[in-house]
Amino acid sequence: MSASLKVEWRTSVAVTGTVVKYTAVAMAIPLVVALVYGEDLLVFGASIFCTLAAGALLERLDPDPDLGPREALLLVALAWLAVAVVGTIPYLLAGYGTESTLAHPVNALFESTSGFTTTGATVMGEISTDRHSHALLMWRQLTQWLGGMGIIVLMVAILPELAVNGADLIQAEAPGPQLQKLTPHIQETARVLWKVYFAFTVGLAVVLYGLHLLGFAPEMDLFNAVAHAFSTMPTGGFSPQSESIAAFSAAVQWAIIPFMVVAGVNFALFWHVLAGDTRDLMRDTELRTYAGAVATFVAVVFGLLYAGVAPPLEIGGTTEGTAEPALRHAAFQIGSLLNSTGFATSDFAQWGTYGQLTLLFAMFVGGSAGSTGGGIKIVRWLIVFKVLRRELLETAHPDVVQPIRLGGHVVDEDAIRGVIGFTLLYIVLFALGVLVIALDAARVGLELTALEAIGASLAAIGNIGPAFGRLGPFGSYLALPATTKLWMVFLMWVGRLEILPALVVFTGGFWRR
Amino acid sequence: MSASLKVEWRTSVAVTGTVVKYTAVAMAIPLVVALVYGEDLLVFGASIFCTLAAGALLERLDPDPDLGPREALLLVALAWLAVAVVGTIPYLLAGYGTESTLAHPVNALFESTSGFTTTGATVMGEISTDRHSHALLMWRQLTQWLGGMGIIVLMVAILPELAVNGADLIQAEAPGPQLQKLTPHIQETARVLWKVYFAFTVGLAVVLYGLHLLGFAPEMDLFNAVAHAFSTMPTGGFSPQSESIAAFSAAVQWAIIPFMVVAGVNFALFWHVLAGDTRDLMRDTELRTYAGAVATFVAVVFGLLYAGVAPPLEIGGTTEGTAEPALRHAAFQIGSLLNSTGFATSDFAQWGTYGQLTLLFAMFVGGSAGSTGGGIKIVRWLIVFKVLRRELLETAHPDVVQPIRLGGHVVDEDAIRGVIGFTLLYIVLFALGVLVIALDAARVGLELTALEAIGASLAAIGNIGPAFGRLGPFGSYLALPATTKLWMVFLMWVGRLEILPALVVFTGGFWRR
Ligand SMILES: [K+]
Ligand SMILES: [K+]
Repeated sequence: MSASLKVEWRTSVAVTGTVVKYTAVAMAIPLVVALVYGEDLLVFGASIFCTLAAGALLERLDPDPDLGPREALLLVALAWLAVAVVGTIPYLLAGYGTESTLAHPVNALFESTSGFTTTGATVMGEISTDRHSHALLMWRQLTQWLGGMGIIVLMVAILPELAVNGADLIQAEAPGPQLQKLTPHIQETARVLWKVYFAFTVGLAVVLYGLHLLGFAPEMDLFNAVAHAFSTMPTGGFSPQSESIAAFSAAVQWAIIPFMVVAGVNFALFWHVLAGDTRDLMRDTELRTYAGAVATFVAVVFGLLYAGVAPPLEIGGTTEGTAEPALRHAAFQIGSLLNSTGFATSDFAQWGTYGQLTLLFAMFVGGSAGSTGGGIKIVRWLIVFKVLRRELLETAHPDVVQPIRLGGHVVDEDAIRGVIGFTLLYIVLFALGVLVIALDAARVGLELTALEAIGASLAAIGNIGPAFGRLGPFGSYLALPATTKLWMVFLMWVGRLEILPALVVFTGGFWRR
Repeated sequence: MSASLKVEWRTSVAVTGTVVKYTAVAMAIPLVVALVYGEDLLVFGASIFCTLAAGALLERLDPDPDLGPREALLLVALAWLAVAVVGTIPYLLAGYGTESTLAHPVNALFESTSGFTTTGATVMGEISTDRHSHALLMWRQLTQWLGGMGIIVLMVAILPELAVNGADLIQAEAPGPQLQKLTPHIQETARVLWKVYFAFTVGLAVVLYGLHLLGFAPEMDLFNAVAHAFSTMPTGGFSPQSESIAAFSAAVQWAIIPFMVVAGVNFALFWHVLAGDTRDLMRDTELRTYAGAVATFVAVVFGLLYAGVAPPLEIGGTTEGTAEPALRHAAFQIGSLLNSTGFATSDFAQWGTYGQLTLLFAMFVGGSAGSTGGGIKIVRWLIVFKVLRRELLETAHPDVVQPIRLGGHVVDEDAIRGVIGFTLLYIVLFALGVLVIALDAARVGLELTALEAIGASLAAIGNIGPAFGRLGPFGSYLALPATTKLWMVFLMWVGRLEILPALVVFTGGFWRR
């Protein structure tokens, strides 16, 4: 608890400056890519310089920053904005004087926010190495991987401290590292989870490039292997291929599925697995529910695809009566959309209404708490359903009040209120998002279908990425007006920050007392 | 509190029998209509006989019924089902051997449930006095009016007793009669509210027929005046005209608007108005919010219509740049859809996406507690928004817990939990409804658009009636498969019973202990 009576915004801005400086360091990776491919070094050289300078300037606001809880809240709100802004620099510099859609500041901000929030919605016109440098495309992938690292810090350091919106449920649920308060322990916890994250990323890159070397994946060169590893583990969904994972062989598609599914699991669980204990993994309520949800949705979509009711059309080939493609596309799309990754192997925007509706429902689920996945999240749904069951019970027996249990523990009523508040706020913002997107697009004469507007709002606030119709996995958000894009930037940012920590900085109460 | 340890279902069934007998008495009205128009008397003669017999049989299960709280719950769940079932008898008898769509039992049950739940969704093929007797069409209108009387009993006698889903908020909020427990007082309260309901019904019929006599409404004969008065005050929405209120003059449309709006107001408030005190009316939080919501939505829709962005097409005439029709259609459609009436003066299913989306949002609002309106309802939205604001505040100040106030009173935390539980359950059932409707229709090769499936689910659970597309105000639900219709019957029934009292009878906990 901070003893100060007002929010020390200078402290938050100064630490944001440090985060910005680290972002500049990360830009060394695309610089190396540019070097390897003999591309223009100036873009990332200049980007690094500008970003370092911006970070250093911000840092000077408070030479000895000491974060209280509210300063930490303000920090995360600012940090995601700040890295999204400096993340536009490479897009703007590379696009300057060209036809690139990312030369427009609003488009650049959309793409950068979409990257760092691991959303994966795109306004890039033509996505290919013919049109853009390898370095720039790798930077786009890297923003998602960095965003994923940020999520881990958010989960470990910020949300448990707040004891709101049920984020502290990770603590009750996770059999892994005890997520502590703002103490030296946090850095240790974050480092453990980062190691898990890093290990899976390297693992996927090795598997993908291995498939290439073994001849199972002609298109999956080292660049693509690293690029897709960067955007899988943060449930990001960006791809340097305009056809996403449909550009690759069936072997690649199968290989990515387990990694996508794992990206939606509480990373803290793998801490125990690494220690050789897999029993807790099997006992975890949230994990079992997640697995059950994935299996159920895959079964439904497989049925639809196999029966030819929702056939992948041009992209993804035929699935009617052919078990392997039907199962692959079902598992891939559900593995991708349920936890908010957003990759695609089939143009599901072309599927029938029923197929699209099933995917839309899967998109409402979200990943597990403690994963990089977005959305409402499994543990919150568990609480919501237990609360509804309790309300039903109390209708018949008003004098009986039962505590709600999760994995053997009684869940605190304050945490329950937080979960319910989060879920309602998510639904309200999503619904408001649909209305604003549809009306604002209509304002400039772009009439979206209901599924396009609904999908776009959910894809933004749930950090999923692709929606339906023209905003599908092989489409883009480019045609939307700038104001709609800015509204989606807001939704992506709010969604990534688990809503309450983002909205609270707009309330007078946050700044008072 | 009942002292009995198990649910005395015989008691509930016996009282249901009494309700069924009263329904038979009400069938005398269409019998009189048949007499006046020289139509077949056998249909309603036989219906009355069958219904009386069914009621008398059921009553014999318990000659001296004494309702405890759970028996009362079971009673309302059964009563709405039972009257819907006996309500099909006239449709089946009149349709026997003809081409009438209502000759099919599922269609008859849909139409009857839609009537008694005051939903107003229809599967009648051609709606006109050429095709159906005046008596049958009047019976259809009357089911809605009887449903409205049932809602008043539900509100006064059953829901406050439960102290769940926030229904007891009427008590805290209403400056009118104190809504008491299951005592002789209840009958008094119900009688006062019935008088208000009856007075407005008569008032509307007089106004409509008066307009006819004065030459302002050539089509609005006595039959139509009474028929529409029957379906306005219960927020029903049925009309013996296939073109709903678009079949009548602008004067009629203007005249109906205030009565529709009034039907969404807490009837208890009019008790004070009748006593000459209008101050409490102005001070009531829910009423002010309702008025504000109506005004805001009317302004938006007026803007869209006036600007020609969402023009009424064939039905309703042009509104672009013409203030009176634009304002009339805006006020009418919002007055009708926001509180769940479901009348139409324009085929809003033909409006642009933005116009339809605005109406869809209005449909989520619902009427006031203590009115015949369906949906989530104003007072619950007020609580939900106050809860969300409190969660935001607590994000910044975790140690501050503020009570939630409404109209100067602190709202009990149990009531708040009930409201939140209701709202979430409503949203979950609505979403499930969309999925089931879309998938089940697709099963028989009927591919609904997203807006059709979304609209149908909301129109059923919110007891609104019309949806969008082919299920719009001048369309019908006839083309849906029988299983979808039965699912919608379930949604209408659940929605009308305020969800929890309906669902609870399916839980094991209701029948135990
Ligand atoms: K994503
Ligand atoms: K209605």
